[in-house]
Amino acid sequence: MTDTESRLHNSNFLRACRREPVDHTPIWIMRQAGRYMKEYRDLREKVSFLEMCKNPELAAEVTLMPIEPIGVDAAILFADILLIVEPTGVGLTFAKGEGPSLSNPVRSGDDVKRLREVEPAESLNYVFEAARLVRQGLPGDIPLIGFCGAPFTVASYMIEGGGSRDYLHTKTLMYRDPGAWHALMELLSRGLVKYLNGQIAAGAQAVQLFDSWVGCLSPDDYREFVLPHSRSVIQGVTPGTPVIHFGTGTATLLEMVCEAGGDVIGLDWRIQLDEGWKRVGYDRGVQGNLEPLVLLAEPDEIRRRAKIVLDRAGGRNGHIFNLGHGIMRQTPVEHARALVDAVHEFSAR
Amino acid sequence: MTDTESRLHNSNFLRACRREPVDHTPIWIMRQAGRYMKEYRDLREKVSFLEMCKNPELAAEVTLMPIEPIGVDAAILFADILLIVEPTGVGLTFAKGEGPSLSNPVRSGDDVKRLREVEPAESLNYVFEAARLVRQGLPGDIPLIGFCGAPFTVASYMIEGGGSRDYLHTKTLMYRDPGAWHALMELLSRGLVKYLNGQIAAGAQAVQLFDSWVGCLSPDDYREFVLPHSRSVIQGVTPGTPVIHFGTGTATLLEMVCEAGGDVIGLDWRIQLDEGWKRVGYDRGVQGNLEPLVLLAEPDEIRRRAKIVLDRAGGRNGHIFNLGHGIMRQTPVEHARALVDAVHEFSAR
Repeated sequence: MTDTESRLHNSNFLRACRREPVDHTPIWIMRQAGRYMKEYRDLREKVSFLEMCKNPELAAEVTLMPIEPIGVDAAILFADILLIVEPTGVGLTFAKGEGPSLSNPVRSGDDVKRLREVEPAESLNYVFEAARLVRQGLPGDIPLIGFCGAPFTVASYMIEGGGSRDYLHTKTLMYRDPGAWHALMELLSRGLVKYLNGQIAAGAQAVQLFDSWVGCLSPDDYREFVLPHSRSVIQGVTPGTPVIHFGTGTATLLEMVCEAGGDVIGLDWRIQLDEGWKRVGYDRGVQGNLEPLVLLAEPDEIRRRAKIVLDRAGGRNGHIFNLGHGIMRQTPVEHARALVDAVHEFSAR
Repeated sequence: MTDTESRLHNSNFLRACRREPVDHTPIWIMRQAGRYMKEYRDLREKVSFLEMCKNPELAAEVTLMPIEPIGVDAAILFADILLIVEPTGVGLTFAKGEGPSLSNPVRSGDDVKRLREVEPAESLNYVFEAARLVRQGLPGDIPLIGFCGAPFTVASYMIEGGGSRDYLHTKTLMYRDPGAWHALMELLSRGLVKYLNGQIAAGAQAVQLFDSWVGCLSPDDYREFVLPHSRSVIQGVTPGTPVIHFGTGTATLLEMVCEAGGDVIGLDWRIQLDEGWKRVGYDRGVQGNLEPLVLLAEPDEIRRRAKIVLDRAGGRNGHIFNLGHGIMRQTPVEHARALVDAVHEFSAR
C-alpha cells in the first residue's frame, strides 16, 4: 500500500465502513453537491443537469464543491442513478425544476426484449472519467463514494417513465409478467455490476446502492422480485470495496435488505437508529438517520437532534452519520455545516 | 334494541369490530365508491367531485353504488377528508383529474390564529344529511362507516396546500413553531370530534380515522406532534361506536398508533398481517391488508394473494379484510368482485 492509499484506507469513513474505531463519527450528506449550495445553483444557471453529469470536468468540480465548505468526511460522485437507462435505449430528460422523464417506458415483455445490454466502458465512460478527476482533486484523506440505483429503483423509473406515487405500471408488470420483470432486473443487474466496478477502478473507495423507492413493496414482493437481483449486484462488486445498501421506508424489509447484502445498511428517519441497528445486526455498520427536514429548523434544534441520533448509535464502531434521505434544496448551507460540526464535536473520541 | 338495530349490531362487520365470531371475514374496500366503477364515472361526467360530496342525494347514491355489485359487508359514506377545511376558512378545489388544491395554506402562527372554529352542525350538515339518506337506503344488515381525516393528515394538506412528497412546509412548521402546530392540531381535533359524532348521530355505526400520510414521520415526531391529537379525537367519539384507526407506512409507529387508540387498527401492505397483529396486540382488531395493485393481476393471482392474507389472520376474531390503501381507478370492477367472493369463500366458517 502506498502512503496515499494508506491515508485513504485509514480515513474515518472507511474505518467506519469496516467497523473499526474512529476519531469521530464520519458524516456525509446524500445529495451534498446540490441545489442548497449557491455555487451549484450558479453553475446550473449555465448548464443543464444532464450536461453537468456528462461533462467530467464539471461533474468533478461539483463533486468537490461541498467538501471543504461543509466539512464532510467523504465525497460522492456527482451523477444520477438514471444515467444507466440511456445505454439500454430508454430516453432520459430532466425538464427544468422537474424530476426525470423517460421516453419509451418499458411496459411489456416485448419492451424488455428490445432493451440493449449495458456496456458502461463505452456508454458511461464519462462517469469513470469524472471519478478519475475527482480522485486527483480530493484531499488525500477523503474517500470517494461511487454509486448506482438498485435494480428495483432503476426499473421502476424505466417502467413508470418518471417518478410515481403508486408504482402502478411497475407492480402490474411484476404481477402479470414475472418473466419479463426478472429479465429486466437481470439485464439491469449485469449492467450495474460493471458500472460500479468501473467506478471503483476509476478511483471510488466505496459504493452505495440507492434503492430509494423500494419501501413501496410488501415483504413478499421484495423477497420474490427484488432481493435476488440486489444480491447479485452486491455480490458482483470488486472484493474489498465496502458496499452501503440504502433504501427508504424499509422498516419491514430490513432483514431482507441485509440478506441481499451490504457492509453498511442505510436507515431512513422512520426507524430509530438503535432499533434499526439491532435488527440489522452488529456485524454490519449502519448509515443515517436524521430526518432531512430537521435541517430547516434552527441550529440549536439541529444540534439537539444530531445528538439524539449519536446517542442511539451509542459510540459503537460502524456508524456513518447521514440524513435519512437527500438534503432538501431549501436547506440553508450554514445549517448543513452546523450539522457536520455538531456530529464531529459530539462524537470526538 | 329494535329488530333493525339488532340486525345491524349482529352484522359480520360490527361483530368483527368487537372481535366476536363471524360467519365469514367481513370485507369492504377503501374508496369502494370510486372511479373504477362505470356508474361512478358516468355520474362524474355530469357533476364535479365537490358537488357530489355536497349534494346529499348524490352522495347517498354513490355511497350505495358498490354495495350490491361488489358485495361488500359495509358501506362507507361518500365524502372527502378535506371537506372540514372549508369551514376553517381555507379554500378547497379539485381540478379535473388532479388532487385537491387548497388556497390560503397555513404556514405560520398568524395563519393558524386566523382559522375559524369548525361547527359541523352548520357547515357540514350536508354530510349528516347524506348519512341519513344512506341509512334509509342500505340493506338492514349493512353497517355504515363514517370517517374523517386524522388531524395530522388534514393539517398536512392545509399547510402544504395540496398533496406532498416531502411535507416540507408541514415539518417546518412543526420544528420552527411547535406552539402554532399544536394550536392547529387542537382546533382540528375539536372540529373532527363533533364531525364524527354528527355522522354517528345521523346513522353511522362505526367510524374510521384516516391518517393516510402519517408514515412520513419519525417515531419521535409522531409521539410529540401527532399522538396526543389523534388520541383526543378518538377519545371524543360517542362511546360504543367502534373506531378504526388507519394509516399507511406505519410499520415503526404501530405501537403508538395503538396508544392513540382505536378498536381496529389499519395495516397497510408493507407489513405482514400476522406480524402486524402481534404487535398491535390481540385485544384489538386489525383491518387490511392486501396490496391494492394486486387487483390489477389476474383473478387467480388475486385469489391466491387474498388467501395468504386470510391465512395470516389465522381465523382469529377481529379481522376486517380490506386493501392496504384505496382501490385504484384502473381496477377492473370484476376483479373487486372476485376479491370479495374469494374472501367470503375462503373464510366461511
